[in-house]
Amino acid sequence: MEFEHSARANELVGRVAEFIRTEIEPVEAELHAATRTAADPWLPQPVFKELQAKAREQGLWNLFLPVAEPGNEQYGEGLPNVDYAPIAEVTGRSFLAPYVFNCNAPDTGNMEVLLRYGTPEQKKQWLEPLLDGAIRSAFCMTEPDVASSDATNMSATAILDGDDVVINGRKWWSTGIGHPDCELLVFMGRTDPGAHRYARHTMVLVPRSTPGVKVERLLPTMHQYDEPHGHGEVSFTDVRVPASNILVGLGRAFEIAQGRLGPGRVHHCMRLIGLAEKALELTLRRGTSRTAFGKPLVDLGGNRERIADARIAINQARLLVLQTAYLLDTKGLAGALSEVSQIKVAVPRMAQDVIDMAIQLHGGGGLSDDFPLAAAWTSARALRLADGPDEVHRNVVAKLELAPYLAQYREAK
Amino acid sequence: MEFEHSARANELVGRVAEFIRTEIEPVEAELHAATRTAADPWLPQPVFKELQAKAREQGLWNLFLPVAEPGNEQYGEGLPNVDYAPIAEVTGRSFLAPYVFNCNAPDTGNMEVLLRYGTPEQKKQWLEPLLDGAIRSAFCMTEPDVASSDATNMSATAILDGDDVVINGRKWWSTGIGHPDCELLVFMGRTDPGAHRYARHTMVLVPRSTPGVKVERLLPTMHQYDEPHGHGEVSFTDVRVPASNILVGLGRAFEIAQGRLGPGRVHHCMRLIGLAEKALELTLRRGTSRTAFGKPLVDLGGNRERIADARIAINQARLLVLQTAYLLDTKGLAGALSEVSQIKVAVPRMAQDVIDMAIQLHGGGGLSDDFPLAAAWTSARALRLADGPDEVHRNVVAKLELAPYLAQYREAK
Amino acid sequence: MEFEHSARANELVGRVAEFIRTEIEPVEAELHAATRTAADPWLPQPVFKELQAKAREQGLWNLFLPVAEPGNEQYGEGLPNVDYAPIAEVTGRSFLAPYVFNCNAPDTGNMEVLLRYGTPEQKKQWLEPLLDGAIRSAFCMTEPDVASSDATNMSATAILDGDDVVINGRKWWSTGIGHPDCELLVFMGRTDPGAHRYARHTMVLVPRSTPGVKVERLLPTMHQYDEPHGHGEVSFTDVRVPASNILVGLGRAFEIAQGRLGPGRVHHCMRLIGLAEKALELTLRRGTSRTAFGKPLVDLGGNRERIADARIAINQARLLVLQTAYLLDTKGLAGALSEVSQIKVAVPRMAQDVIDMAIQLHGGGGLSDDFPLAAAWTSARALRLADGPDEVHRNVVAKLELAPYLAQYREAK
Amino acid sequence: MEFEHSARANELVGRVAEFIRTEIEPVEAELHAATRTAADPWLPQPVFKELQAKAREQGLWNLFLPVAEPGNEQYGEGLPNVDYAPIAEVTGRSFLAPYVFNCNAPDTGNMEVLLRYGTPEQKKQWLEPLLDGAIRSAFCMTEPDVASSDATNMSATAILDGDDVVINGRKWWSTGIGHPDCELLVFMGRTDPGAHRYARHTMVLVPRSTPGVKVERLLPTMHQYDEPHGHGEVSFTDVRVPASNILVGLGRAFEIAQGRLGPGRVHHCMRLIGLAEKALELTLRRGTSRTAFGKPLVDLGGNRERIADARIAINQARLLVLQTAYLLDTKGLAGALSEVSQIKVAVPRMAQDVIDMAIQLHGGGGLSDDFPLAAAWTSARALRLADGPDEVHRNVVAKLELAPYLAQYREAK
Repeated sequence: MEFEHSARANELVGRVAEFIRTEIEPVEAELHAATRTAADPWLPQPVFKELQAKAREQGLWNLFLPVAEPGNEQYGEGLPNVDYAPIAEVTGRSFLAPYVFNCNAPDTGNMEVLLRYGTPEQKKQWLEPLLDGAIRSAFCMTEPDVASSDATNMSATAILDGDDVVINGRKWWSTGIGHPDCELLVFMGRTDPGAHRYARHTMVLVPRSTPGVKVERLLPTMHQYDEPHGHGEVSFTDVRVPASNILVGLGRAFEIAQGRLGPGRVHHCMRLIGLAEKALELTLRRGTSRTAFGKPLVDLGGNRERIADARIAINQARLLVLQTAYLLDTKGLAGALSEVSQIKVAVPRMAQDVIDMAIQLHGGGGLSDDFPLAAAWTSARALRLADGPDEVHRNVVAKLELAPYLAQYREAK
Repeated sequence: MEFEHSARANELVGRVAEFIRTEIEPVEAELHAATRTAADPWLPQPVFKELQAKAREQGLWNLFLPVAEPGNEQYGEGLPNVDYAPIAEVTGRSFLAPYVFNCNAPDTGNMEVLLRYGTPEQKKQWLEPLLDGAIRSAFCMTEPDVASSDATNMSATAILDGDDVVINGRKWWSTGIGHPDCELLVFMGRTDPGAHRYARHTMVLVPRSTPGVKVERLLPTMHQYDEPHGHGEVSFTDVRVPASNILVGLGRAFEIAQGRLGPGRVHHCMRLIGLAEKALELTLRRGTSRTAFGKPLVDLGGNRERIADARIAINQARLLVLQTAYLLDTKGLAGALSEVSQIKVAVPRMAQDVIDMAIQLHGGGGLSDDFPLAAAWTSARALRLADGPDEVHRNVVAKLELAPYLAQYREAK
Repeated sequence: MEFEHSARANELVGRVAEFIRTEIEPVEAELHAATRTAADPWLPQPVFKELQAKAREQGLWNLFLPVAEPGNEQYGEGLPNVDYAPIAEVTGRSFLAPYVFNCNAPDTGNMEVLLRYGTPEQKKQWLEPLLDGAIRSAFCMTEPDVASSDATNMSATAILDGDDVVINGRKWWSTGIGHPDCELLVFMGRTDPGAHRYARHTMVLVPRSTPGVKVERLLPTMHQYDEPHGHGEVSFTDVRVPASNILVGLGRAFEIAQGRLGPGRVHHCMRLIGLAEKALELTLRRGTSRTAFGKPLVDLGGNRERIADARIAINQARLLVLQTAYLLDTKGLAGALSEVSQIKVAVPRMAQDVIDMAIQLHGGGGLSDDFPLAAAWTSARALRLADGPDEVHRNVVAKLELAPYLAQYREAK
Repeated sequence: MEFEHSARANELVGRVAEFIRTEIEPVEAELHAATRTAADPWLPQPVFKELQAKAREQGLWNLFLPVAEPGNEQYGEGLPNVDYAPIAEVTGRSFLAPYVFNCNAPDTGNMEVLLRYGTPEQKKQWLEPLLDGAIRSAFCMTEPDVASSDATNMSATAILDGDDVVINGRKWWSTGIGHPDCELLVFMGRTDPGAHRYARHTMVLVPRSTPGVKVERLLPTMHQYDEPHGHGEVSFTDVRVPASNILVGLGRAFEIAQGRLGPGRVHHCMRLIGLAEKALELTLRRGTSRTAFGKPLVDLGGNRERIADARIAINQARLLVLQTAYLLDTKGLAGALSEVSQIKVAVPRMAQDVIDMAIQLHGGGGLSDDFPLAAAWTSARALRLADGPDEVHRNVVAKLELAPYLAQYREAK
């Protein structure tokens, strides 16, 4: 047991934090305000690209990349999960930072998929511009018409027709699709309803500009559209792409999705931990700068207890995510299945509660956009649904816990 | 003990519910969409006034009015709190309904204040058009620069200057101020800092058009602006109104505010109970119309338990509010002080939890505006702060509970 | 809506409370201590019978009896549930009181069953001495070898053999069986495994002294044996009683059990509310009589908030139970099915939490037997299992809530 | 970050677990039953000493000892906290094991104090027989007459009188004092009320047999006496011991107590984690060996979700304790002040909840002594008070969190 980050992690965390402090924070509020009042909020503010360029220059770029595997060296090498985790935490304190460092979902997950499962041609066409930040991507899985918590419910179709795949159906919560640079949709649809439950679906790379792809509308999350990235409802009508756009092979979508999950959940959770830390920090600051009933706010009623509980909850959550990252590094996804679901349950719930507490202590201001708390709450709340609702993940944890015992039960019957 | 509503309450509840079902619900989604996409969302949609006219025609108008007291008969007579409560619940199921029936905050509270404390001239000038729905009003109390949970912190000023009162300072969360018909601001400010803690402040009626009154901005609540009513930050710069605009007298603001609270909190809480019922109903409907893992959603994991807990929580909360209404009717505010604070703690928290559960069962849709759940959650969350944060009300309850015991403690010392 | 107890209820509550204050409380601690240190703690202390005699003399006897139905007048008449409820609350504040007033479980439930379902002979033989307090009874339903939360699991047998019923099997948590006066066991066992799920079991009156009845051991609840009443594990080995001891008829046990439940749950819940009130009162007293860090305990950290939350929780729970009592009185069990389960979920959980809070504020003393808190906690905790675990009752509530919606779901399939 | 136990820790955990499995578990239930039914339950069962001898023979003895510091080598050497922690977890699964391995509180804490602060004579007289398991000890700090959550409230006195210290006052919750081998009381009392808040009290070694020491009674925790160790209320009446029995010096008690806390809390918390694991394991076993409503219990309602939540809660708690142990090893108590309080808040609460869940799934059996759950719950509940109540520890955490911010607040004033 050794509870210290590696020197490399510490160094990068320091540089990333410094970049955020000196380059991002001074312009962030302004940028959000400019977006809100822009004639077209879906047009990214120019400062954004400038920040990206600066970050890239300093080598703070694509840090999310996994440790290189044979054949992937040319795309650069990232860090073990356990080293990237504290960096993700720091970037999570700012809504802008993940984009600035090219470390934002869903692009990171899409890049990982391409890196691991893409053909050389697919990598050339899509992975390289994504790694460059030249284009953006979306992931099209969840559907409005079925309970997508059961992913096998997905009923949009991807059918082989000669040398093409033909895609039909409707997706929603396709994050990032509002961005003008979004050029790639990673689509997941049903190919063979008669196959095994987890071998029915196929993943296909669909250029955003393919005829038949239509963004029907952009969806608000708790009234917030997250411009300029956004979340879209997308219809696919006889969308035809070459079969070479299929990832891995027909019916292999779940296999790919599975491999995409572990690191992505670590990233999400660490960013939320950063956000919870930020909320706690704001609470400490606000609670010691305002006075009511003759005392600083923190000295009223149960406020100190709530601060302590927040600290304890954050610390416990962080350790669980770091251990999960460590397991992913040392045992792979198969050795971290339960933990990956555990963090997905524990962290968003924790963050939601800590941020709710922070909002309460900020009074009306906490609900407004004078503080990043309303947006933080929305992030945490959304993550209790995105990437599988709490209930599905609890079920995974319980299933793994029960497996040996239920085997006996069934035998005894 | 008799747990039945009066015949009059039942009859009105039935008619109000029918009106909502047949007149409001069919146009509500459309109206919200029209507002969202309007060039100017702060311009009320015309259907709104039509609905008001229809409601008024059917006698479903100003039902919130209290039982008439001597001298107030000419302004019509309302219902005992315990009879109005179930009507408020029904109207709470729709965001539009309270406005349609002229029963929305803060106008109701302002009308009550004018009815009880206004001079004949003040009533003529402001109460009558408010009762007619010809104008709207706002209440300006909370301030951005101090912890307003301690209301005595209020530092905007109302100073007598000859025959005028001069007002300076800054308020926020002035609800309703975005509406073009908002013509009256009920302002509360400090007059005499040397007076007793609760005799320092004065309430003044300020026409919206008085020079020096400026709506600095409209504030979002969890990213939502609540057009066309809105919540504003308002600056008052040397705002001068005749001293006859003072309510009751200098230094009497807390006395007035106190009288305004009881019924208002019953209304708020009953409306939230209506909203929680609506959320539960949507949950039952969604949970039995979608299938995952081969079962209707309600049959998965702990969903049935959560439904049961929601039912139990709603029922308990409703009974507490009804009892509070009964106490207000039979013993007045002095006989219901603890209960008025109890419901203010219990109901918004309950509603927030029930609605959060409903969102979770709706998946991504629950966070979008396809369902009224995101807006419902925001209402419930905001009410944990509006009209005094939970913590202040818990403190009132505890104080009343402890009074006899602490007296002994102090004696023993 | 009228939130006032009837004059009769108020008068009886006053007299019962006075009796407890003047007759029971002065001897209660002593009696418990005497029991603890007695050579045989299962021998009731003599003062017990004296208190019963005094209570009976004052007419404070068998108040639990329901309103008389035709044919039952000769056994006296009790109160509507809504009037008895506040009396049950007051008696719940003392562990002794329910016994003193002949209003304790399971005797009350057994008496109700005999009253409603007994033949004249059964009434003469068992009901009369129970009403007199001359004998005690137990209820033998739960079994150690099966999950008794599913009552149809019961596998002890009651088989007709000529003019006799022959009983075999093992029961546990037979409350009251440790008492030397316990002479009647109301036994529930399986008769016809082939019948409908709820028509398989039969209820039989078994004299404690019948050969083959053996109390195998007395069971502690959280280390506490509840002498002199206790909870037993009882084996039945070829126990033979005349068929005239069958209640109503073969296979009718669930029908009888059902009728027994409503009022019994109201009693249990009201007693727990009394206990929670007692715990809160002790908290207020302790919290204002001890000083730490320069303040009375109640002024530290979140203590006042916890006191407020306790008050709110108790008040809400009480109202729900009173409404349930009202529904039982006005609509019968069929009109209160959901509510009877709702209170069974809500009240023990609430009481457990309030008492846990009280223990915490009492420090080590709260865990000892210097205060009635450890015993109170045990009562509340046990009631989350006794008479059906929380989970079963949540399921009843959800089932009733979902019924209309699931019907549609099934149709749609 | 490295989440692996050292080889040495793993090896010892394996041997300790094997010893428990093969030597302790087969006799444990029997031993508890023998104690319960013994004529004198305070007389330790003989098997106890036999188990201790066997453990010692195998080198599984005094593993709790810290890493040797200069001058302490002759008393043997233990493990770093981070290595002992997983051993403590394993021993916590059995109520007997900590005693068998001579690793039970409060003897461990008393031995640590003697090791670190004792004079050579004090070590010879008390430490050596304690390390041998020849005698037992108690710690006398908490008092019945004051709120001992504020330790400076302690009002029993230790006054220098010539070459003696004279002790007067009353203590309770002196754990271990019921044991016939208990020969040493580590007493803490007030010497100089005029000194600084934390320099008023003195720690004195008091032989159990000194005249004036009287065990007034043994105290139950939730009705359980924990024979043969027990918890006592002890009066000290003019108890006179030589001044050489003072630890370190007059007024140094808090300084000593402080040093005693860190490792002790890690031990307590790890044992509770072991107990929570045991409870979860029993839940999995019971939940998959009983059937209700046609399914194994675990497949009913929210049971799987509760199992997942328990797993997540245990894992998070364990990591926080291990990190705390690591900080104690690498930075000392000063570097782990917040964490030591964090675990004291987080772990007992977690364990209480997990065990409560386990009880619920076990039905009535869970409340009886057929399973170790009632005793486990009592342990967890007691630890929310013992060694400082939750509230005091939350306050420590909040204070450290707030320190930099409050400094600014005070300056700004």
